[in-house]
Amino acid sequence: MEKTDQPAVGRRVWAIAEGYIPSGSVGQAREQVSHEAACLLNAGDVPAEVEITVYFADRDPAGPYRVTVGPRRTLHLRFNDLTDPEPIPRDTAYASVIRASVPVVVQHTRLDSRDPHFALLSTVAFPVA
Amino acid sequence: MEKTDQPAVGRRVWAIAEGYIPSGSVGQAREQVSHEAACLLNAGDVPAEVEITVYFADRDPAGPYRVTVGPRRTLHLRFNDLTDPEPIPRDTAYASVIRASVPVVVQHTRLDSRDPHFALLSTVAFPVA
Amino acid sequence: MEKTDQPAVGRRVWAIAEGYIPSGSVGQAREQVSHEAACLLNAGDVPAEVEITVYFADRDPAGPYRVTVGPRRTLHLRFNDLTDPEPIPRDTAYASVIRASVPVVVQHTRLDSRDPHFALLSTVAFPVA
Amino acid sequence: MEKTDQPAVGRRVWAIAEGYIPSGSVGQAREQVSHEAACLLNAGDVPAEVEITVYFADRDPAGPYRVTVGPRRTLHLRFNDLTDPEPIPRDTAYASVIRASVPVVVQHTRLDSRDPHFALLSTVAFPVA
Repeated sequence: MEKTDQPAVGRRVWAIAEGYIPSGSVGQAREQVSHEAACLLNAGDVPAEVEITVYFADRDPAGPYRVTVGPRRTLHLRFNDLTDPEPIPRDTAYASVIRASVPVVVQHTRLDSRDPHFALLSTVAFPVA
Repeated sequence: MEKTDQPAVGRRVWAIAEGYIPSGSVGQAREQVSHEAACLLNAGDVPAEVEITVYFADRDPAGPYRVTVGPRRTLHLRFNDLTDPEPIPRDTAYASVIRASVPVVVQHTRLDSRDPHFALLSTVAFPVA
Repeated sequence: MEKTDQPAVGRRVWAIAEGYIPSGSVGQAREQVSHEAACLLNAGDVPAEVEITVYFADRDPAGPYRVTVGPRRTLHLRFNDLTDPEPIPRDTAYASVIRASVPVVVQHTRLDSRDPHFALLSTVAFPVA
Repeated sequence: MEKTDQPAVGRRVWAIAEGYIPSGSVGQAREQVSHEAACLLNAGDVPAEVEITVYFADRDPAGPYRVTVGPRRTLHLRFNDLTDPEPIPRDTAYASVIRASVPVVVQHTRLDSRDPHFALLSTVAFPVA
Protein backbone atom coordinates (compact mmCIF):
# COMPACT_ATOMS: atom_id res chain seq x y z
CA MET A 1 0.00 0.00 0.00
CA GLU A 2 1.08 3.53 -0.65
CA LYS A 3 1.50 5.72 2.35
CA THR A 4 -1.58 7.86 2.68
CA ASP A 5 0.39 11.06 2.25
CA GLN A 6 1.93 9.96 -1.05
CA PRO A 7 0.18 9.54 -4.37
CA ALA A 8 0.43 6.10 -5.97
CA VAL A 9 3.26 6.18 -8.52
CA GLY A 10 1.93 5.25 -11.91
CA ARG A 11 -0.97 3.53 -13.59
CA ARG A 12 -2.20 -0.05 -13.93
CA VAL A 13 -2.59 -0.31 -17.72
CA TRP A 14 -0.03 0.85 -20.28
CA ALA A 15 0.41 0.50 -24.04
CA ILE A 16 3.45 0.50 -26.32
CA ALA A 17 2.42 0.80 -29.97
CA GLU A 18 5.95 0.36 -31.35
CA GLY A 19 7.87 -2.88 -31.15
CA TYR A 20 10.64 -4.42 -33.25
CA ILE A 21 13.56 -6.62 -32.27
CA PRO A 22 16.28 -6.58 -34.96
CA SER A 23 17.77 -10.02 -35.49
CA GLY A 24 21.28 -8.70 -36.02
CA SER A 25 23.72 -7.37 -33.44
CA VAL A 26 27.26 -6.17 -33.57
CA GLY A 27 28.25 -8.17 -30.52
CA GLN A 28 27.04 -11.06 -28.45
CA ALA A 29 27.73 -9.55 -25.03
CA ARG A 30 24.35 -9.14 -23.32
CA GLU A 31 24.65 -5.37 -23.10
CA GLN A 32 25.44 -5.12 -26.82
CA VAL A 33 22.72 -7.37 -28.23
CA SER A 34 19.96 -5.50 -30.08
CA HIS A 35 17.04 -5.50 -27.71
CA GLU A 36 13.78 -3.92 -26.82
CA ALA A 37 12.80 -3.38 -23.22
CA ALA A 38 9.81 -2.41 -21.16
CA CYS A 39 11.29 -0.77 -18.09
CA LEU A 40 8.90 -1.26 -15.19
CA LEU A 41 9.05 0.67 -11.94
CA ASN A 42 7.08 -0.49 -8.92
CA ALA A 43 7.59 2.25 -6.35
CA GLY A 44 4.89 0.85 -4.08
CA ASP A 45 5.01 -1.51 -1.12
CA VAL A 46 3.41 -4.65 -2.58
CA PRO A 47 4.50 -6.83 -5.52
CA ALA A 48 3.18 -5.94 -8.97
CA GLU A 49 1.84 -8.93 -10.89
CA VAL A 50 2.20 -7.95 -14.53
CA GLU A 51 0.58 -9.42 -17.64
CA ILE A 52 1.79 -8.49 -21.11
CA THR A 53 -0.18 -9.09 -24.30
CA VAL A 54 1.70 -8.77 -27.59
CA TYR A 55 -0.12 -7.70 -30.78
CA PHE A 56 0.96 -8.32 -34.37
CA ALA A 57 0.02 -7.15 -37.86
CA ASP A 58 -1.44 -10.34 -39.19
CA ARG A 59 -2.10 -12.87 -36.45
CA ASP A 60 -3.87 -13.08 -33.11
CA PRO A 61 -2.12 -11.69 -30.04
CA ALA A 62 0.41 -13.69 -28.03
CA GLY A 63 0.41 -14.01 -24.29
CA PRO A 64 -0.24 -13.15 -21.65
CA TYR A 65 3.36 -13.16 -20.55
CA ARG A 66 3.65 -12.90 -16.78
CA VAL A 67 6.30 -11.24 -14.66
CA THR A 68 6.44 -9.94 -11.11
CA VAL A 69 8.08 -6.70 -10.04
CA GLY A 70 8.88 -6.63 -6.34
CA PRO A 71 7.96 -3.73 -4.09
CA ARG A 72 10.37 -0.78 -4.44
CA ARG A 73 12.06 -2.48 -7.34
CA THR A 74 12.53 -1.89 -11.07
CA LEU A 75 12.58 -4.56 -13.78
CA HIS A 76 14.05 -3.76 -17.16
CA LEU A 77 12.27 -6.50 -19.02
CA ARG A 78 13.66 -7.44 -22.41
CA PHE A 79 11.05 -8.64 -24.88
CA ASN A 80 13.92 -10.75 -26.27
CA ASP A 81 13.83 -12.80 -23.09
CA LEU A 82 10.13 -13.67 -23.20
CA THR A 83 9.59 -17.33 -24.10
CA ASP A 84 6.44 -18.46 -22.32
CA PRO A 85 3.96 -19.01 -23.93
CA GLU A 86 6.10 -18.35 -27.06
CA PRO A 87 9.12 -16.27 -28.09
CA ILE A 88 8.64 -12.84 -29.70
CA PRO A 89 9.62 -13.16 -33.38
CA ARG A 90 12.58 -11.08 -34.60
CA ASP A 91 12.38 -8.58 -37.46
CA THR A 92 8.61 -8.35 -36.94
CA ALA A 93 6.46 -5.35 -36.02
CA TYR A 94 4.55 -5.77 -32.79
CA ALA A 95 2.89 -3.75 -30.02
CA SER A 96 2.05 -4.50 -26.42
CA VAL A 97 -0.40 -3.82 -23.61
CA ILE A 98 0.84 -4.15 -20.05
CA ARG A 99 -1.57 -4.66 -17.16
CA ALA A 100 -0.36 -4.59 -13.55
CA SER A 101 -2.09 -5.45 -10.29
CA VAL A 102 -0.88 -2.20 -8.71
CA PRO A 103 0.28 1.13 -10.18
CA VAL A 104 3.61 1.00 -12.02
CA VAL A 105 5.46 3.22 -14.49
CA VAL A 106 6.47 1.87 -17.91
CA GLN A 107 9.10 3.21 -20.28
CA HIS A 108 9.94 1.70 -23.67
CA THR A 109 13.54 1.54 -24.91
CA ARG A 110 15.29 -0.03 -27.86
CA LEU A 111 18.99 -0.54 -28.48
CA ASP A 112 19.62 -1.24 -32.15
CA SER A 113 23.08 -2.67 -32.72
CA ARG A 114 22.60 -4.18 -36.17
CA ASP A 115 24.90 -1.51 -37.38
CA PRO A 116 28.33 -1.59 -35.73
CA HIS A 117 27.28 1.64 -34.02
CA PHE A 118 24.43 1.87 -31.55
CA ALA A 119 21.13 3.64 -32.02
CA LEU A 120 18.77 4.25 -29.12
CA LEU A 121 15.17 5.25 -28.68
CA SER A 122 13.04 5.68 -25.57
CA THR A 123 9.65 7.00 -24.59
CA VAL A 124 7.37 6.74 -21.63
CA ALA A 125 4.63 4.28 -22.63
CA PHE A 126 1.04 5.48 -23.02
CA PRO A 127 -0.86 5.38 -19.71
CA VAL A 128 -4.21 3.78 -20.55
CA ALA A 129 -5.83 3.61 -17.12
CA MET B 1 -16.49 -3.36 -28.27
CA GLU B 2 -14.28 -3.38 -25.26
CA LYS B 3 -15.21 -5.82 -22.55
CA THR B 4 -17.05 -3.92 -19.88
CA ASP B 5 -14.43 -4.75 -17.26
CA GLN B 6 -11.57 -3.35 -19.34
CA PRO B 7 -10.91 0.28 -20.15
CA ALA B 8 -10.72 1.14 -23.84
CA VAL B 9 -7.05 1.19 -24.86
CA GLY B 10 -6.17 4.57 -26.27
CA ARG B 11 -7.75 7.66 -27.75
CA ARG B 12 -9.46 8.55 -31.01
CA VAL B 13 -7.47 11.65 -32.03
CA TRP B 14 -3.68 11.94 -31.95
CA ALA B 15 -1.15 14.47 -33.23
CA ILE B 16 2.50 14.18 -34.30
CA ALA B 17 4.12 17.62 -34.64
CA GLU B 18 7.40 16.31 -36.03
CA GLY B 19 7.76 14.75 -39.45
CA TYR B 20 10.62 14.43 -41.91
CA ILE B 21 11.51 11.67 -44.34
CA PRO B 22 15.17 11.90 -45.42
CA SER B 23 15.60 11.16 -49.11
CA GLY B 24 18.86 9.31 -48.61
CA SER B 25 19.42 5.82 -47.24
CA VAL B 26 22.44 3.65 -46.81
CA GLY B 27 20.67 0.61 -48.20
CA GLN B 28 17.66 -0.30 -50.26
CA ALA B 29 16.47 -3.25 -48.18
CA ARG B 30 13.08 -2.29 -46.77
CA GLU B 31 14.26 -2.47 -43.16
CA GLN B 32 17.21 -0.17 -43.92
CA VAL B 33 15.45 2.57 -45.87
CA SER B 34 15.14 5.86 -43.99
CA HIS B 35 11.53 6.00 -42.92
CA GLU B 36 9.06 7.55 -40.60
CA ALA B 37 6.28 5.52 -39.09
CA ALA B 38 3.08 5.98 -37.13
CA CYS B 39 2.74 2.78 -35.14
CA LEU B 40 -0.95 2.15 -34.52
CA LEU B 41 -2.30 -0.32 -31.99
CA ASN B 42 -5.95 -1.34 -32.04
CA ALA B 43 -6.38 -3.49 -28.94
CA GLY B 44 -10.16 -3.48 -29.25
CA ASP B 45 -12.57 -5.88 -30.89
CA VAL B 46 -13.74 -3.88 -33.91
CA PRO B 47 -11.76 -2.50 -36.86
CA ALA B 48 -10.32 1.01 -36.54
CA GLU B 49 -10.98 3.20 -39.56
CA VAL B 50 -8.16 5.74 -39.52
CA GLU B 51 -7.83 9.09 -41.32
CA ILE B 52 -4.52 10.93 -41.43
CA THR B 53 -4.15 14.59 -42.35
CA VAL B 54 -0.65 15.85 -43.13
CA TYR B 55 0.30 19.50 -42.49
CA PHE B 56 3.14 21.46 -44.08
CA ALA B 57 4.97 24.75 -43.55
CA ASP B 58 3.81 26.57 -46.63
CA ARG B 59 0.89 24.82 -48.31
CA ASP B 60 -2.53 23.45 -47.44
CA PRO B 61 -2.76 20.06 -45.75
CA ALA B 62 -2.74 16.80 -47.69
CA GLY B 63 -5.14 13.96 -47.16
CA PRO B 64 -7.03 12.46 -45.63
CA TYR B 65 -5.08 9.26 -46.06
CA ARG B 66 -7.15 6.24 -45.02
CA VAL B 67 -6.04 2.99 -43.47
CA THR B 68 -7.78 0.28 -41.46
CA VAL B 69 -6.31 -1.45 -38.43
CA GLY B 70 -8.00 -4.74 -37.69
CA PRO B 71 -9.23 -5.71 -34.23
CA ARG B 72 -6.41 -6.88 -31.93
CA ARG B 73 -3.86 -5.91 -34.53
CA THR B 74 -1.04 -3.38 -34.89
CA LEU B 75 -0.09 -1.49 -38.05
CA HIS B 76 3.32 0.13 -38.32
CA LEU B 77 2.38 2.58 -41.02
CA ARG B 78 5.23 4.16 -42.94
CA PHE B 79 4.52 7.67 -44.15
CA ASN B 80 6.86 6.74 -47.02
CA ASP B 81 4.24 4.30 -48.26
CA LEU B 82 1.36 6.79 -48.40
CA THR B 83 0.49 7.63 -52.02
CA ASP B 84 -3.24 8.32 -52.10
CA PRO B 85 -4.21 11.13 -52.52
CA GLU B 86 -0.53 12.11 -52.99
CA PRO B 87 2.93 11.01 -51.80
CA ILE B 88 4.55 12.69 -48.79
CA PRO B 89 7.45 14.79 -50.09
CA ARG B 90 10.97 13.86 -48.95
CA ASP B 91 13.31 16.26 -47.16
CA THR B 92 10.30 18.35 -46.12
CA ALA B 93 9.03 19.22 -42.64
CA TYR B 94 5.52 18.02 -41.95
CA ALA B 95 3.17 17.14 -39.10
CA SER B 96 0.10 14.95 -38.85
CA VAL B 97 -3.23 14.48 -37.12
CA ILE B 98 -4.63 10.96 -36.86
CA ARG B 99 -8.35 10.34 -36.25
CA ALA B 100 -9.67 6.84 -35.61
CA SER B 101 -13.21 5.49 -35.38
CA VAL B 102 -12.37 3.65 -32.14
CA PRO B 103 -9.66 4.14 -29.50
CA VAL B 104 -6.12 3.36 -30.68
CA VAL B 105 -2.60 4.09 -29.44
CA VAL B 106 -0.12 5.94 -31.69
CA GLN B 107 3.65 6.05 -31.42
CA HIS B 108 5.94 7.98 -33.77
CA THR B 109 9.28 6.52 -34.88
CA ARG B 110 11.95 7.53 -37.39
CA LEU B 111 14.87 5.52 -38.70
CA ASP B 112 17.40 7.83 -40.31
CA SER B 113 19.85 5.90 -42.47
CA ARG B 114 21.22 8.75 -44.59
CA ASP B 115 24.40 8.25 -42.75
CA PRO B 116 25.84 4.73 -43.08
CA HIS B 117 24.97 4.33 -39.40
CA PHE B 118 21.43 4.37 -38.08
CA ALA B 119 19.83 6.99 -35.90
CA LEU B 120 16.49 6.39 -34.22
CA LEU B 121 13.87 8.47 -32.48
CA SER B 122 10.53 7.56 -30.99
CA THR B 123 7.81 9.13 -28.87
CA VAL B 124 4.23 8.38 -28.02
CA ALA B 125 2.15 10.80 -30.08
CA PHE B 126 0.11 13.53 -28.36
CA PRO B 127 -3.35 12.28 -27.36
CA VAL B 128 -5.72 15.02 -28.45
CA ALA B 129 -9.08 13.52 -27.54
CA MET C 1 -11.87 28.54 -34.83
CA GLU C 2 -12.18 24.82 -34.55
CA LYS C 3 -15.24 23.29 -36.08
CA THR C 4 -17.71 22.61 -33.34
CA ASP C 5 -17.68 18.88 -33.98
CA GLN C 6 -13.90 18.62 -33.63
CA PRO C 7 -11.86 18.98 -30.46
CA ALA C 8 -9.18 21.66 -30.49
CA VAL C 9 -5.86 20.04 -31.36
CA GLY C 10 -3.38 20.67 -28.59
CA ARG C 11 -2.71 22.96 -25.69
CA ARG C 12 -1.67 26.57 -25.23
CA VAL C 13 1.30 26.18 -22.88
CA TRP C 14 4.12 23.65 -23.30
CA ALA C 15 7.47 23.05 -21.63
CA ILE C 16 10.72 21.45 -22.84
CA ALA C 17 13.08 20.82 -19.93
CA GLU C 18 15.98 19.64 -22.10
CA GLY C 19 17.90 21.89 -24.43
CA TYR C 20 21.42 21.82 -25.81
CA ILE C 21 22.79 22.95 -29.17
CA PRO C 22 26.17 21.35 -29.88
CA SER C 23 28.58 23.81 -31.49
CA GLY C 24 30.12 21.22 -33.78
CA SER C 25 28.66 19.65 -36.91
CA VAL C 26 29.97 17.22 -39.45
CA GLY C 27 28.65 19.28 -42.35
CA GLN C 28 27.49 22.77 -43.12
CA ALA C 29 24.49 21.85 -45.25
CA ARG C 30 21.42 23.06 -43.36
CA GLU C 31 19.97 19.60 -42.97
CA GLN C 32 23.25 18.31 -41.50
CA VAL C 33 23.98 21.06 -38.98
CA SER C 34 23.53 20.03 -35.35
CA HIS C 35 20.29 21.60 -34.28
CA GLU C 36 17.48 21.55 -31.80
CA ALA C 37 13.94 22.15 -32.89
CA ALA C 38 10.53 22.79 -31.42
CA CYS C 39 8.13 21.38 -33.98
CA LEU C 40 4.87 23.32 -33.75
CA LEU C 41 1.60 22.19 -35.28
CA ASN C 42 -1.32 24.59 -35.59
CA ALA C 43 -4.18 22.43 -36.86
CA GLY C 44 -6.73 25.17 -36.21
CA ASP C 45 -8.17 27.87 -38.44
CA VAL C 46 -6.57 30.99 -36.97
CA PRO C 47 -2.89 31.97 -36.68
CA ALA C 48 -1.04 30.95 -33.52
CA GLU C 49 1.00 33.75 -31.99
CA VAL C 50 3.75 32.00 -30.08
CA GLU C 51 6.08 33.28 -27.35
CA ILE C 52 9.08 31.28 -26.23
CA THR C 53 10.97 31.90 -22.99
CA VAL C 54 14.37 30.24 -22.61
CA TYR C 55 15.71 29.29 -19.16
CA PHE C 56 19.33 28.72 -18.17
CA ALA C 57 21.29 27.28 -15.25
CA ASP C 58 22.86 30.44 -13.98
CA ARG C 59 21.28 33.53 -15.47
CA ASP C 60 17.87 35.07 -15.95
CA PRO C 61 15.67 33.80 -18.77
CA ALA C 62 15.95 35.08 -22.33
CA GLY C 63 13.06 36.13 -24.48
CA PRO C 64 10.31 36.14 -25.23
CA TYR C 65 11.08 35.06 -28.75
CA ARG C 66 8.06 35.48 -31.01
CA VAL C 67 6.96 33.44 -34.00
CA THR C 68 3.67 32.93 -35.80
CA VAL C 69 2.36 29.61 -37.05
CA GLY C 70 -0.28 30.01 -39.72
CA PRO C 71 -3.60 28.18 -39.64
CA ARG C 72 -3.33 24.55 -40.76
CA ARG C 73 0.45 24.85 -40.88
CA THR C 74 3.44 23.38 -39.09
CA LEU C 75 6.64 25.22 -38.16
CA HIS C 76 9.76 23.26 -37.32
CA LEU C 77 11.46 26.04 -35.42
CA ARG C 78 15.17 25.67 -34.87
CA PHE C 79 16.42 27.20 -31.64
CA ASN C 80 19.63 27.78 -33.61
CA ASP C 81 17.79 30.33 -35.73
CA LEU C 82 16.50 32.46 -32.85
CA THR C 83 18.35 35.77 -32.68
CA ASP C 84 15.88 38.35 -31.34
CA PRO C 85 16.24 39.42 -28.56
CA GLU C 86 19.50 37.39 -28.42
CA PRO C 87 20.97 34.18 -29.86
CA ILE C 88 20.77 30.93 -27.89
CA PRO C 89 24.30 30.10 -26.72
CA ARG C 90 25.88 26.87 -28.00
CA ASP C 91 27.16 24.09 -25.75
CA THR C 92 24.93 25.39 -22.95
CA ALA C 93 22.11 23.66 -21.10
CA TYR C 94 18.76 25.40 -21.43
CA ALA C 95 15.03 24.75 -21.21
CA SER C 96 12.01 26.49 -22.67
CA VAL C 97 8.37 27.36 -22.11
CA ILE C 98 6.18 27.92 -25.15
CA ARG C 99 2.92 29.88 -24.91
CA ALA C 100 0.54 30.10 -27.86
CA SER C 101 -2.57 32.19 -28.45
CA VAL C 102 -4.49 29.11 -29.63
CA PRO C 103 -4.03 25.36 -29.08
CA VAL C 104 -0.95 23.88 -30.75
CA VAL C 105 1.06 20.67 -30.44
CA VAL C 106 4.79 20.83 -29.64
CA GLN C 107 7.42 18.14 -30.18
CA HIS C 108 11.11 18.50 -29.30
CA THR C 109 13.81 17.08 -31.57
CA ARG C 110 17.59 17.24 -31.66
CA LEU C 111 19.95 16.22 -34.42
CA ASP C 112 23.46 15.86 -33.05
CA SER C 113 26.03 15.78 -35.83
CA ARG C 114 29.14 16.60 -33.83
CA ASP C 115 30.20 13.09 -34.51
CA PRO C 116 30.44 12.25 -38.22
CA HIS C 117 27.40 10.04 -37.62
CA PHE C 118 24.03 11.38 -36.62
CA ALA C 119 22.25 10.91 -33.33
CA LEU C 120 18.60 11.82 -32.91
CA LEU C 121 16.22 12.34 -30.03
CA SER C 122 12.59 13.38 -29.93
CA THR C 123 9.74 13.64 -27.46
CA VAL C 124 6.40 15.32 -27.31
CA ALA C 125 6.86 18.35 -25.06
CA PHE C 126 5.09 18.52 -21.68
CA PRO C 127 1.58 19.98 -22.02
CA VAL C 128 1.32 22.50 -19.18
CA ALA C 129 -2.13 23.94 -19.81
CA MET D 1 4.66 32.12 -6.55
CA GLU D 2 3.19 31.88 -9.97
CA LYS D 3 1.42 34.92 -11.24
CA THR D 4 -2.29 34.41 -10.79
CA ASP D 5 -2.92 34.67 -14.52
CA GLN D 6 -0.41 31.94 -15.36
CA PRO D 7 -0.78 28.23 -14.70
CA ALA D 8 1.97 26.62 -12.64
CA VAL D 9 4.46 25.03 -15.02
CA GLY D 10 4.72 21.33 -14.26
CA ARG D 11 4.07 18.82 -11.54
CA ARG D 12 5.59 17.97 -8.17
CA VAL D 13 6.17 14.22 -8.58
CA TRP D 14 7.76 12.56 -11.61
CA ALA D 15 9.00 9.08 -12.44
CA ILE D 16 11.65 7.78 -14.85
CA ALA D 17 11.39 3.99 -15.26
CA GLU D 18 14.50 3.68 -17.42
CA GLY D 19 18.01 4.26 -16.14
CA TYR D 20 21.42 2.99 -17.16
CA ILE D 21 24.82 4.65 -17.10
CA PRO D 22 27.27 2.88 -19.42
CA SER D 23 30.73 2.63 -17.88
CA GLY D 24 32.53 3.19 -21.16
CA SER D 25 32.96 6.42 -23.09
CA VAL D 26 34.78 7.35 -26.23
CA GLY D 27 36.22 10.49 -24.66
CA GLN D 28 36.87 12.00 -21.27
CA ALA D 29 35.74 15.52 -22.07
CA ARG D 30 32.69 16.19 -19.91
CA GLU D 31 30.40 16.68 -22.87
CA GLN D 32 31.50 13.36 -24.38
CA VAL D 33 31.25 11.12 -21.32
CA SER D 34 28.36 8.65 -21.41
CA HIS D 35 25.78 10.07 -19.06
CA GLU D 36 22.19 10.05 -18.04
CA ALA D 37 20.46 13.24 -17.04
CA ALA D 38 17.25 14.41 -15.45
CA CYS D 39 16.67 17.84 -16.93
CA LEU D 40 14.71 19.90 -14.41
CA LEU D 41 12.95 23.16 -15.23
CA ASN D 42 11.70 25.42 -12.46
CA ALA D 43 9.80 28.15 -14.27
CA GLY D 44 8.32 29.47 -11.03
CA ASP D 45 9.40 32.22 -8.68
CA VAL D 46 10.56 30.21 -5.66
CA PRO D 47 13.35 27.63 -5.35
CA ALA D 48 12.45 23.99 -5.96
CA GLU D 49 13.79 21.63 -3.32
CA VAL D 50 14.11 18.30 -5.09
CA GLU D 51 14.47 14.79 -3.68
CA ILE D 52 15.40 11.86 -5.91
CA THR D 53 14.94 8.21 -4.93
CA VAL D 54 16.70 5.62 -7.08
CA TYR D 55 15.27 2.09 -7.46
CA PHE D 56 17.14 -1.06 -8.46
CA ALA D 57 16.32 -4.61 -9.55
CA ASP D 58 17.60 -6.45 -6.54
CA ARG D 59 18.27 -4.14 -3.62
CA ASP D 60 16.50 -1.46 -1.62
CA PRO D 61 16.29 2.04 -3.06
CA ALA D 62 19.08 4.60 -2.68
CA GLY D 63 18.60 8.16 -1.61
CA PRO D 64 17.08 10.54 -1.25
CA TYR D 65 19.50 12.63 -3.24
CA ARG D 66 18.83 16.34 -2.77
CA VAL D 67 19.29 19.21 -5.19
CA THR D 68 17.87 22.70 -5.46
CA VAL D 69 16.74 24.35 -8.66
CA GLY D 70 16.58 28.10 -8.37
CA PRO D 71 13.58 30.14 -9.48
CA ARG D 72 13.45 30.64 -13.28
CA ARG D 73 16.37 28.24 -13.71
CA THR D 74 17.01 24.87 -15.27
CA LEU D 75 19.30 22.17 -13.91
CA HIS D 76 20.49 19.39 -16.18
CA LEU D 77 21.34 16.96 -13.42
CA ARG D 78 23.60 14.08 -14.34
CA PHE D 79 22.94 10.90 -12.38
CA ASN D 80 26.68 10.30 -12.87
CA ASP D 81 27.37 13.23 -10.58
CA LEU D 82 25.26 12.02 -7.64
CA THR D 83 27.44 10.83 -4.78
CA ASP D 84 25.55 11.58 -1.57
CA PRO D 85 24.39 9.28 0.02
CA GLU D 86 26.11 6.94 -2.49
CA PRO D 87 27.15 6.92 -6.17
CA ILE D 88 24.85 5.41 -8.80
CA PRO D 89 26.45 2.16 -9.99
CA ARG D 90 27.47 1.93 -13.67
CA ASP D 91 26.21 -0.74 -16.05
CA THR D 92 23.22 -1.31 -13.77
CA ALA D 93 19.51 -0.91 -14.49
CA TYR D 94 17.78 1.60 -12.27
CA ALA D 95 14.73 3.87 -12.13
CA SER D 96 13.94 7.04 -10.24
CA VAL D 97 11.19 9.06 -8.61
CA ILE D 98 11.64 12.80 -8.34
CA ARG D 99 9.69 14.86 -5.81
CA ALA D 100 9.84 18.64 -5.81
CA SER D 101 8.53 21.23 -3.37
CA VAL D 102 6.98 23.24 -6.21
CA PRO D 103 5.91 22.34 -9.76
CA VAL D 104 8.77 21.52 -12.11
CA VAL D 105 9.12 19.80 -15.50
CA VAL D 106 11.39 16.75 -15.86
CA GLN D 107 12.87 15.30 -19.04
CA HIS D 108 15.10 12.24 -19.19
CA THR D 109 18.07 12.09 -21.57
CA ARG D 110 20.94 9.69 -22.14
CA LEU D 111 24.09 10.13 -24.18
CA ASP D 112 25.68 6.77 -24.87
CA SER D 113 29.26 7.16 -26.06
CA ARG D 114 30.55 3.64 -25.42
CA ASP D 115 30.68 3.30 -29.13
CA PRO D 116 32.93 5.88 -30.82
CA HIS D 117 29.72 7.34 -32.22
CA PHE D 118 27.02 8.88 -30.08
CA ALA D 119 23.55 7.56 -29.45
CA LEU D 120 20.89 9.69 -27.80
CA LEU D 121 17.51 9.12 -26.21
CA SER D 122 15.10 11.49 -24.52
CA THR D 123 11.57 11.51 -23.17
CA VAL D 124 9.52 13.69 -20.91
CA ALA D 125 9.33 11.83 -17.59
CA PHE D 126 5.99 10.47 -16.35
CA PRO D 127 4.06 13.10 -14.37
CA VAL D 128 2.83 11.25 -11.28
CA ALA D 129 1.12 14.06 -9.38
